[in-house]
Amino acid sequence: MTAGTAFDFQQYVASRRAAVEERLAQYLFPDDQELLFQAMRYSALGGGKRLRALLCLSAAEAVGAFDCDPLQTALPCACAIEMVHAMSLIHDDLPCMDDDDYRRGRLTNHKVFGEATALLAGDALLVLSLETLARRSPDWIKPPLLLKVVAELAAVAGAKGLVGGQVDDLLATGAISQASPGPASSPAAASSCLLEKIHQAKTGALLRFSVWSGASLMGADDRILGLLTRFGEILGLAFQIADDMLDVTGDIKALGKTPGKDQAAGKLTWVSLYGMEKSKETLVKLENEGKSLLSKTGLAETSLSPLVCLLEYAIHRMN
Amino acid sequence: MTAGTAFDFQQYVASRRAAVEERLAQYLFPDDQELLFQAMRYSALGGGKRLRALLCLSAAEAVGAFDCDPLQTALPCACAIEMVHAMSLIHDDLPCMDDDDYRRGRLTNHKVFGEATALLAGDALLVLSLETLARRSPDWIKPPLLLKVVAELAAVAGAKGLVGGQVDDLLATGAISQASPGPASSPAAASSCLLEKIHQAKTGALLRFSVWSGASLMGADDRILGLLTRFGEILGLAFQIADDMLDVTGDIKALGKTPGKDQAAGKLTWVSLYGMEKSKETLVKLENEGKSLLSKTGLAETSLSPLVCLLEYAIHRMN
Repeated sequence: MTAGTAFDFQQYVASRRAAVEERLAQYLFPDDQELLFQAMRYSALGGGKRLRALLCLSAAEAVGAFDCDPLQTALPCACAIEMVHAMSLIHDDLPCMDDDDYRRGRLTNHKVFGEATALLAGDALLVLSLETLARRSPDWIKPPLLLKVVAELAAVAGAKGLVGGQVDDLLATGAISQASPGPASSPAAASSCLLEKIHQAKTGALLRFSVWSGASLMGADDRILGLLTRFGEILGLAFQIADDMLDVTGDIKALGKTPGKDQAAGKLTWVSLYGMEKSKETLVKLENEGKSLLSKTGLAETSLSPLVCLLEYAIHRMN
Repeated sequence: MTAGTAFDFQQYVASRRAAVEERLAQYLFPDDQELLFQAMRYSALGGGKRLRALLCLSAAEAVGAFDCDPLQTALPCACAIEMVHAMSLIHDDLPCMDDDDYRRGRLTNHKVFGEATALLAGDALLVLSLETLARRSPDWIKPPLLLKVVAELAAVAGAKGLVGGQVDDLLATGAISQASPGPASSPAAASSCLLEKIHQAKTGALLRFSVWSGASLMGADDRILGLLTRFGEILGLAFQIADDMLDVTGDIKALGKTPGKDQAAGKLTWVSLYGMEKSKETLVKLENEGKSLLSKTGLAETSLSPLVCLLEYAIHRMN
């Protein structure tokens, strides 16, 4: 499968991003000017790649249907995902967590609005995401299906997803300590296992959910859903490996944050554990595997182009 | 309407509380021993009156139905409400918020588990509440109805409910300052208006939701739902006035927290604004109004007894 010949990825991304930004702005209390709403908008509308929203929309578009518009079907969900992502960045940046002053080249939320308001803005975005998905999704989505997607987003954001990953991340850097560390294992095995667990929970789960939810809401059958979900997992892993490599090779623009920070903090990363060469090899394998999974869906090649390009983007940002 | 003659309120509360505690423990990852899960359980299973859960269950029982068990119908929702309540206490107690060391006679969550873990335990409880309601509710509840209840709980917990109320509370005590204070008004009018807004959002919204959700899940018609929702609002207001009075009269057992704290902090309370006598008069009026609303539902007097007693309990805790 090749992409980018007839398909204009830049144009696709621009149009879908614009749709997400416009809809997000509608959901974020545009008529309320109080501090809390300003803080919510500061982070949720403060730029970013919108990779998760794009994955959700392009999975919906790949599945397609005769009787409903994929974009209208998946837009509330795509916005909900971006709210969860924004919330996790706000809370991760707080002084008691990673204590970051800058994010996407701007001051972090708590540097602008103070710790209390930033924390509460995160809480508010978290529940607004679920309310938005539950209440703003179009009525042609069957309620039992929508309920399942709502429950899954809550799970992905919670103790076994984003939140759990952040705890493991803080444990790995020694920022917090575990009272009961669990069964003993060799340090190397523990590191490798912990790294995958952190990646999977902190980054992988929401990226996989993005693909899964977009396809689910369009009523994809179990076979296609299985293949696309596995594609989402592979993209999530590749995204994280590429992120760890960018921290070393150091392109601030592609990374969107200060490079070298993970290294300086002694963070457990793919590169620190396996080295650059092994990481590059893994990326090549993952890219092939991801494209192969898409082919196996049997969906039209043109409708799969956005997903192919998003996988390439997740991997080749450094170029 | 009189209560407590044939109806054993103590026994009712004990049995319903036991059901809530048992179910909550099942939902809170009993097999996971990591720090995060310990922190979640510490607050969510750490005692408390369970007033919100009891309201949800007794509203469901008041409505009743031939074809479904009210307790089984409303238990997941009652537990979800208690998770939201526990989460709001954890976040409110954090150093960047009210900075409390004790809650219900025990160390607050962040004093035991550290700030980072406490914050994340709150986040995890917040989404677990919505996941629990969406996923654990029995399948005889119609999915569109359940979706509506999930969306409403998210709204009640969010920027226009609990979170918004906490922001206003911090603004009122001067802990944070508002960039754009809105239209000018006289200080007394502003205080009175702000007090009602804070009460309504911080305490009233979740208490009203407790009654509304229990009745809704049982399929109550709009007329009964309207009366019970208004009853929930009245109970919420009465609960808050009684709370403010307890802070002055100072029974630590009935209050469940250190009395005199609001006064010392110069907090805006019902008593500081209207005085004790006026507060007492208002409570009498609210109790009568609440009982009158219950009568108007036309539901059997025996099935309304728990709600009557819960209103009396909310008001007469000091005796």
